[in-house]
Amino acid sequence: MDSSIEKRVAELKAKIKSFPDFPKEGILFWDIFSAISDGHTCKLLQGLLVDVIKEKFPDVEAIVGVESRGFLFSFSLSAELGVGCLPVRKKGKLPGEVISHKYELEYGSDILEVQKNAIRPGLKCLIIDDLMATGGSIKAATTLLKKCGADVVGCLVVIELMSLNGRKNNPDVTVHSLITYD
Amino acid sequence: MDSSIEKRVAELKAKIKSFPDFPKEGILFWDIFSAISDGHTCKLLQGLLVDVIKEKFPDVEAIVGVESRGFLFSFSLSAELGVGCLPVRKKGKLPGEVISHKYELEYGSDILEVQKNAIRPGLKCLIIDDLMATGGSIKAATTLLKKCGADVVGCLVVIELMSLNGRKNNPDVTVHSLITYD
Repeated sequence: MDSSIEKRVAELKAKIKSFPDFPKEGILFWDIFSAISDGHTCKLLQGLLVDVIKEKFPDVEAIVGVESRGFLFSFSLSAELGVGCLPVRKKGKLPGEVISHKYELEYGSDILEVQKNAIRPGLKCLIIDDLMATGGSIKAATTLLKKCGADVVGCLVVIELMSLNGRKNNPDVTVHSLITYD
Repeated sequence: MDSSIEKRVAELKAKIKSFPDFPKEGILFWDIFSAISDGHTCKLLQGLLVDVIKEKFPDVEAIVGVESRGFLFSFSLSAELGVGCLPVRKKGKLPGEVISHKYELEYGSDILEVQKNAIRPGLKCLIIDDLMATGGSIKAATTLLKKCGADVVGCLVVIELMSLNGRKNNPDVTVHSLITYD
């Protein structure tokens, strides 16, 4: 990262609050909304994400937002860059023909879906989300997009929780994060 | 609306697909994602929303996105306009002190929440969502914001389903929609 990006990332990081024991005991929750309640920080974060995409993923053709906090950034970046905006949603939320993938959570499992017709073979997709923990939903999103024939050029997250090994759990995708916590 | 806006709205409307009997029999589902899978339409829609806000709600200080499709536009508009981005979420999703409101659905009820600390008294808020049907979630969001002392300057939706009376069910808020269907 160049120094301009480093300085802006530090400014962003100072705005993100954490909440212990949310949503349950033992979890430290990093809240992106605490940062973006301020308009200046919204502009700062949008600018950072755009700059990173232009540098690291210049040939992207669609931004894929993972429901629901990924939606904050998928349309925003698609509109700025003039590329498609695609959703990955929980089962039963998307109309038309969908492709599904079931993945395991700490307790139980979940099913994610994409709209088949939105993805042509070879479409260069970038997955976006606010935070990567174990990387389970990102792995599921990658699997889904590849099932549809898409080319997953990478995954961009605002926050990466290093100790939860999301990057290691996604060896087949180039992960980029703005902010890391141990 | 001026003619430039009318022309762009017609172009947007032509891109939105509907799906009969989704999510259940008898419902015609208007799918915003079918329009924004195309990058040109993302730019078109973002430009339209920005122009409408500047004309109709020029003094807005925060854009409030209703989970989850409202998130597509809340951050996008906040970053463009340099104003705050606030969420209205389903119960249990937001950390910190929250204010809740239970509202009735066709079958059963739902609870929405906002983060209390994000809203100072008098904050001029604009609620945004992709679609207004009966307007139940918009009414709940308005109630929540007012409970926190906010000034709800209006509600902006991309699509309004006229026959479901969302506007009549929200007499206390100025509703603006880009596209209407009977």
